[in-house]
Amino acid sequence: MCQLLGMNCNTPTDIVFSFTGFATRGGRTDEHKDGWGIAFFEGNGVRLFVDHQAAVASPIAELIKRYPIKSKNVIAHIRKATQGQVTLENCHPFVRECWGRYWVFAHNGDLKNFDPVLDGPYKPVGNTDSERAFCYLLQKMRRHFGEVLPALAELTAFLKQATAEIAGHGTFNMMLSNGEALFAHCSTKLHYIVRQYPFTTAKLSDEEVSVDFAEVTTPKDRVAVIVTEPLTTNESWTQFQPGELKVFVDGEVCTSCSASG
Amino acid sequence: MCQLLGMNCNTPTDIVFSFTGFATRGGRTDEHKDGWGIAFFEGNGVRLFVDHQAAVASPIAELIKRYPIKSKNVIAHIRKATQGQVTLENCHPFVRECWGRYWVFAHNGDLKNFDPVLDGPYKPVGNTDSERAFCYLLQKMRRHFGEVLPALAELTAFLKQATAEIAGHGTFNMMLSNGEALFAHCSTKLHYIVRQYPFTTAKLSDEEVSVDFAEVTTPKDRVAVIVTEPLTTNESWTQFQPGELKVFVDGEVCTSCSASG
Repeated sequence: MCQLLGMNCNTPTDIVFSFTGFATRGGRTDEHKDGWGIAFFEGNGVRLFVDHQAAVASPIAELIKRYPIKSKNVIAHIRKATQGQVTLENCHPFVRECWGRYWVFAHNGDLKNFDPVLDGPYKPVGNTDSERAFCYLLQKMRRHFGEVLPALAELTAFLKQATAEIAGHGTFNMMLSNGEALFAHCSTKLHYIVRQYPFTTAKLSDEEVSVDFAEVTTPKDRVAVIVTEPLTTNESWTQFQPGELKVFVDGEVCTSCSASG
Repeated sequence: MCQLLGMNCNTPTDIVFSFTGFATRGGRTDEHKDGWGIAFFEGNGVRLFVDHQAAVASPIAELIKRYPIKSKNVIAHIRKATQGQVTLENCHPFVRECWGRYWVFAHNGDLKNFDPVLDGPYKPVGNTDSERAFCYLLQKMRRHFGEVLPALAELTAFLKQATAEIAGHGTFNMMLSNGEALFAHCSTKLHYIVRQYPFTTAKLSDEEVSVDFAEVTTPKDRVAVIVTEPLTTNESWTQFQPGELKVFVDGEVCTSCSASG
């Protein structure tokens, strides 16, 4: 199994603090050492860093921990291989373009007997169940909506059905973002927190690191962090229900997006 | 205008030496400071690094110069914006998936009145003529060959026609790779060199750096480097003819691939 980390904000924010704790699980405080990756949206562009080395040993992970890339939507993944070899093409997140936008996807779990017909424009490059699920999701989305990006409520309603269908094949904790919204589906384990004014100090559980968010934010900032296992010891994380899909926009759960689901 | 750098090898090789000279042109020895990018194939996977900062000022470019990522196919680009803003989504190289493989593309030049109908699966995310040309090329390639990757000679014949058509709209120096072959088309300026046994010492023109390739290679290694302007002062680079498309495979010009063109 793997672990997932996502961030969705109302203002471009760096993920140095959360990624520092998360990356430590990639081979030191936990066993997820079969590669890792992180994707940052910046405007409509995406920076994707993937590495098949353990995150704790990777010079690129070291760079991410030191270089504060600011983004409104980030998805990261540390891998413990269940299906597919430890190669670069099997590292999450995966990126594809649809409707003139990049879509970023990462998955934690294991899908059994999941071999959908992929006869649309999206084909897996590697051999994981995860990339197969991503290609299937995009193919289905494109067939459902045609050639135009739908409104967020429609997209959410569609993704609720599509993720439930895929989750019928096994464990499907996943994150998907198009740079505007971050969708998170929970099969078994996912937690989130919304940090906003008044900000306090947070303490990582995996490293001896604390940060006083009041010192590095403005009162208007709002940041949602979504992760497999809570990253801090002194904050209150909300656990997802199994089968739940949440949509994060501007650093909070978008309730109106889900209403039509 | 921009500059292009490509490398195609018969064994995974690092590009630290060539990239060090090339990146210096990204704001120091030359004016290409509106972003840069580099894509490395590793097996079927791709590592893409893009940055809208000048290459000389970018911490990510610094990492590339120090971290020897080994690859058989690399494409890099430094940008001086002619069309499209200086944003991440406008940085080359661009990556798309087709037929279950990643395709990497970078362009130097300026296309006028180039506004093809893009009604297939590939749409530009940014607003450059270059990304438009890439999407058009993939759309055309997919329509021509259907759902299966063609043999290299067929693909080369197709690309000769398609690149000539696009070059009818302006300057179209470009590099394209699917991880096996590297295609380079010259409208105005492109040079290449094949380094093989017996290896000698090369001296960069943009930095006070030399390398004795005999010390870092085996007699079987062969490396083709393709670049807008020669990178070294003491080697003999071959200039492309205007309108020429060359295919590089295993570190040399593939003459059999071009025969059927």
